[in-house]
Amino acid sequence: MGSLQKDHELENEMVSVTNPLDSEELRRQGHMIIDFIADYYKNVEKYPVRSQVEPGYLSKRLPESAPNNPEPIEKILQDVQEHIVPGITHWQSPNYFAYFPSSGSIAGILGEMLSTCFNVVGFNWMSSPAATELESIVMDWLGEMLTLPKPFLFSGNGGGVLQGTTCEAILCTLVAARDQVLRNIGRENITKLVVYGSDQTHSAIQKAAQIAGINPNNFRAIRTTKSSLFGLTPDSLLSTIKSDVEAGLIPFFLCATIGTTSTTAVDPLGPLCKIAKKHSIWVHVDAAYAGSACICPEFRHFLDGVEDADSFSLNAHKWFFTTLDCCCLWVKDPSALIKSLSTYPEYLRNKASESKLVVDYKDWQITLSRRFRSMKLWLVLRSYGVTNLRMFLRSHVKMAKTFEELVASDKRFEIVVPRNFALVCFRAVPSVIKLR
Amino acid sequence: MGSLQKDHELENEMVSVTNPLDSEELRRQGHMIIDFIADYYKNVEKYPVRSQVEPGYLSKRLPESAPNNPEPIEKILQDVQEHIVPGITHWQSPNYFAYFPSSGSIAGILGEMLSTCFNVVGFNWMSSPAATELESIVMDWLGEMLTLPKPFLFSGNGGGVLQGTTCEAILCTLVAARDQVLRNIGRENITKLVVYGSDQTHSAIQKAAQIAGINPNNFRAIRTTKSSLFGLTPDSLLSTIKSDVEAGLIPFFLCATIGTTSTTAVDPLGPLCKIAKKHSIWVHVDAAYAGSACICPEFRHFLDGVEDADSFSLNAHKWFFTTLDCCCLWVKDPSALIKSLSTYPEYLRNKASESKLVVDYKDWQITLSRRFRSMKLWLVLRSYGVTNLRMFLRSHVKMAKTFEELVASDKRFEIVVPRNFALVCFRAVPSVIKLR
Repeated sequence: MGSLQKDHELENEMVSVTNPLDSEELRRQGHMIIDFIADYYKNVEKYPVRSQVEPGYLSKRLPESAPNNPEPIEKILQDVQEHIVPGITHWQSPNYFAYFPSSGSIAGILGEMLSTCFNVVGFNWMSSPAATELESIVMDWLGEMLTLPKPFLFSGNGGGVLQGTTCEAILCTLVAARDQVLRNIGRENITKLVVYGSDQTHSAIQKAAQIAGINPNNFRAIRTTKSSLFGLTPDSLLSTIKSDVEAGLIPFFLCATIGTTSTTAVDPLGPLCKIAKKHSIWVHVDAAYAGSACICPEFRHFLDGVEDADSFSLNAHKWFFTTLDCCCLWVKDPSALIKSLSTYPEYLRNKASESKLVVDYKDWQITLSRRFRSMKLWLVLRSYGVTNLRMFLRSHVKMAKTFEELVASDKRFEIVVPRNFALVCFRAVPSVIKLR
Repeated sequence: MGSLQKDHELENEMVSVTNPLDSEELRRQGHMIIDFIADYYKNVEKYPVRSQVEPGYLSKRLPESAPNNPEPIEKILQDVQEHIVPGITHWQSPNYFAYFPSSGSIAGILGEMLSTCFNVVGFNWMSSPAATELESIVMDWLGEMLTLPKPFLFSGNGGGVLQGTTCEAILCTLVAARDQVLRNIGRENITKLVVYGSDQTHSAIQKAAQIAGINPNNFRAIRTTKSSLFGLTPDSLLSTIKSDVEAGLIPFFLCATIGTTSTTAVDPLGPLCKIAKKHSIWVHVDAAYAGSACICPEFRHFLDGVEDADSFSLNAHKWFFTTLDCCCLWVKDPSALIKSLSTYPEYLRNKASESKLVVDYKDWQITLSRRFRSMKLWLVLRSYGVTNLRMFLRSHVKMAKTFEELVASDKRFEIVVPRNFALVCFRAVPSVIKLR
């Protein structure tokens, strides 16, 4: 074993030269990155918001294969500035007004850094108790800030979980709802299941239904009109359900939206949930964008009726100052998720899970491995505090209100639908355009 | 509008005091975080690897609700050290030997920080061309390092995509395979579809099948034995397929593994793919852990036969020095993914997508929003270079080999299966235990 031993010593010597987690090298390079990031934010307003590059620009600038030898961080950061920054669409620019916002913050960025630092693979409680417990705690905190009904909170036997995006949140709840029904009526009836949304509902729901094996013909994008401000009307839901039932189909899932993507329309939760309940339909409330605003008492009324829903989600990475990704999902009946999403192979067994005293979030989501996302939400809540967070949200809404008034007072433009939150839908008046 | 104007000015003044993205405040707090992180790594070896806390420890230490007022970063970091660190299971400790590793690195951490900095929501090319193009480029780089057959690379009309985890990678390919079959035989036959793996295959495959609406009775965990070193034998696959076909069922998906979770067993890709091809079965190769090692020529033979598979994935966050999450998935036929996972609502339409000259990764994955994950993979490849990366991997395997030899030379222990990579399966010899 002499020669192996020698090899091993040699190897150790080589590795110690380039220990990939050397703390002082991490410190040195880390400080450089922070200055790079701070400089980026100092200058972000100067960049054209939308990247001006042409398709394929980057392959012309980068080598054809990975380098054989290490390159210094200085050179890499120079390349980031020269070749990556021009290809960035600057979502964090104050001049960015596309889609919904991606409202980052210092606290969100720092929280993400801490989560990256610990780099835990938090599939179950034991794999890092702090990751699981902090998540349950902040989800109850945020749930209380939203005055979500008690049955959605851990303190009321429901509970919250951080998913990556609304797509995942909807897929998890839809699969739970699907299996709840199929357990009663038999799996062979999967082709009869019907999902409901409106023609304003986010495409996430149709995709989730598709992934979950629901017949694509059984997805109902119920028509909305301007007369209901593009909200899903109870009458149209009821008549659609009735004709499906008459056709021998089985309604099982409704996605209602608070703040649709196109116009921030609000579906009337109360009446929709009442209809859904009568037909044993699971109601998920997607408040991806607008949910955050509901921590302000004056906007909370938009959630009225949520007490009769089964699950509720909002994206903290949209309008709640965490970075992507951070979707907050609350469910009244976590066991419905667990029945569909739990796995417990030999290599994951442990005493804590067996004790049933802990939450194993792997059973609340699609993936096994999961990041320590609660860290950034915790930092946002603490760094700003509830009062400031409300103030931020109100200031955005106020700016939109001011803009809406300016547009309304200009005859060249018209407001298309009344503003609910911080999105203003307007257009150039066609007749005026013609005149010009 | 006078009073609104005044309100607005006041508001602006207040917000400017606490601009959540102020560059100099970001710089100040960012440097503090870097020192915190560097100190963590300086001390990580001193912590007990496994957290010693009891279930529910954290709720006893944190307030019952979110604070109303802001708290300084100094106080928050103090709480992280006092209350979070004790609840961390230290995956990055050099003394950590549970599960598969989560091999972080400075380059991985820094890449994650840059990705967080830009905080782009990169669903399609236009939303940040650099994010999409860098991903395609590094996936071709890594594919070439693995000498993946050309049809898996963009340069060969296949392509790679970064998913969060293997669970997502498998779900995407399974749904693509499912729909390919159902388009031919009709959706009503979904209940007849059968998925194959071995009793050593990761639970991710069973969960993916369950999410995708496959009848849970139609998941085959084919028995393996020590005589085949826990690899799936072609004979057992063939006989299982035959009996399913005879029963009127429809085989459609096989997950073969290179480096199983329990023993790093290797399924024989070549013969398995040949059988699968004859029955039009999609083969996904899950090399979550062991795939990384295959950038070393001496380990590449473990992938022999991959040329006949349809998709291949490895987790760069396991053994390739990126932080969680970073699963690399290559497919030969991206259009199969796109047919199942594409959405194109009004609010996402744009000229670049219409030109068909760009990749819109939203159609290659479950979620719409996606993080700039390629940044960390790029930094890892450049900061270390191919030569060093191979050296790191070899040094891990060599350490395992040394340990294996030490164990084998000690009569109290026995090696259970021969070592393939850096995992050594051993146990105390039962008879020796009895004697003591």
